[in-house]
Amino acid sequence: MSLPMIPTITVFERSPDGGKGLARDMRVRWAFEEVAQPYEVRLVSFGAMKEPAHRALHPFGQIPTYEEGDLALFESGAIVFHIAERHAGLLPANANARARAITWMFAALNTVEPPILDLQTAKFLEGDKAWYEQRLPLVKNRIRDRLGELSDRLGDAEWLDGAFSAGDLMMVTVLLRLKASGMLDEYPNLAAYVAQGEARPAYKRAFDAQLAVFAGRPPIA
Amino acid sequence: MSLPMIPTITVFERSPDGGKGLARDMRVRWAFEEVAQPYEVRLVSFGAMKEPAHRALHPFGQIPTYEEGDLALFESGAIVFHIAERHAGLLPANANARARAITWMFAALNTVEPPILDLQTAKFLEGDKAWYEQRLPLVKNRIRDRLGELSDRLGDAEWLDGAFSAGDLMMVTVLLRLKASGMLDEYPNLAAYVAQGEARPAYKRAFDAQLAVFAGRPPIA
Repeated sequence: MSLPMIPTITVFERSPDGGKGLARDMRVRWAFEEVAQPYEVRLVSFGAMKEPAHRALHPFGQIPTYEEGDLALFESGAIVFHIAERHAGLLPANANARARAITWMFAALNTVEPPILDLQTAKFLEGDKAWYEQRLPLVKNRIRDRLGELSDRLGDAEWLDGAFSAGDLMMVTVLLRLKASGMLDEYPNLAAYVAQGEARPAYKRAFDAQLAVFAGRPPIA
Repeated sequence: MSLPMIPTITVFERSPDGGKGLARDMRVRWAFEEVAQPYEVRLVSFGAMKEPAHRALHPFGQIPTYEEGDLALFESGAIVFHIAERHAGLLPANANARARAITWMFAALNTVEPPILDLQTAKFLEGDKAWYEQRLPLVKNRIRDRLGELSDRLGDAEWLDGAFSAGDLMMVTVLLRLKASGMLDEYPNLAAYVAQGEARPAYKRAFDAQLAVFAGRPPIA
């Protein structure tokens, strides 16, 4: 390909969260904003996400996807990494610092996010079950185990490892899922860390762009 | 650093699985074997994993970690990626194919592994709860959703995207967690895919090396 191409990402046509920044395209939008690269957006309905045309891009029928010429990617982690690898601003130049930033990306997605997602899974898929209320403290305590460890590591540092990186971007978006639960406030340094992420101009631009999609479209319950 | 250094990884001193290859150092061992690089192993007890010395390497008190000179990494995904980036054999040379292989690494760890881990979490942490048996079909069906989608994408291909890559390495190790459950056999192409991974000489060398650690050490129940 000889000409630079503007990548296209897919996002929810209607918001499951009312546009609070929790849909996973937010991570990709934020990454694009941090590295000051343009991108285009294609809206996908919940129905269309499960159709063969979309599954050809994303085998698990989710958003976001990333298309750029012949290249099609899925998984927010992989897309953010792809952007971070190609444009300065999300990964340190020093090889060791870069490897550590990538480590935090994986830690956010594979160690911290799963117990946090369990809380949403419990609510949305088991909220009507007899065991829901009884089980909730176990689910929350598994989250607290991770938050406590993360809080200990962060200490009073600004970011997880030196300058802001794709690792922080991922961790902040993962922790943001807890905002409504109030659990973040049990760890003041983590709450401040997340607030600091949200205060970044690139985050705000991404948030506003995501919210604008849903203007006039009722949220999905 | 002027001299090549042999990296050291940490592994369980005693096996939670009796040496069936499920501990996460297996992924890293397998990666080293695929790229034909030597590595050293340091055993860590369950108690020591939670002590400050180990937490300095791994904030979440787990294995594996990776040390090479000044560099310390954690998270099996990040370590495998680090190895794959530095040595030929786990990531394609073509830029687009490389990005797709990385996508499968993230998909394995962030989309396929979490519901599979829930099955173990349910068993080990909620196996004595009143709701365990009733809830189990929900947990299993969430796994089946992912397996069905993965099976559809794999079709009759040998690997997920062209030649064997770090994406397949991760996906095979994630799916291996299901072996004892019998659920993999519901998807013959996935069962064959995993068997094909286990049949690789590099996998076998890694498996044997992991198992050798536990020889003469009783498994942890």
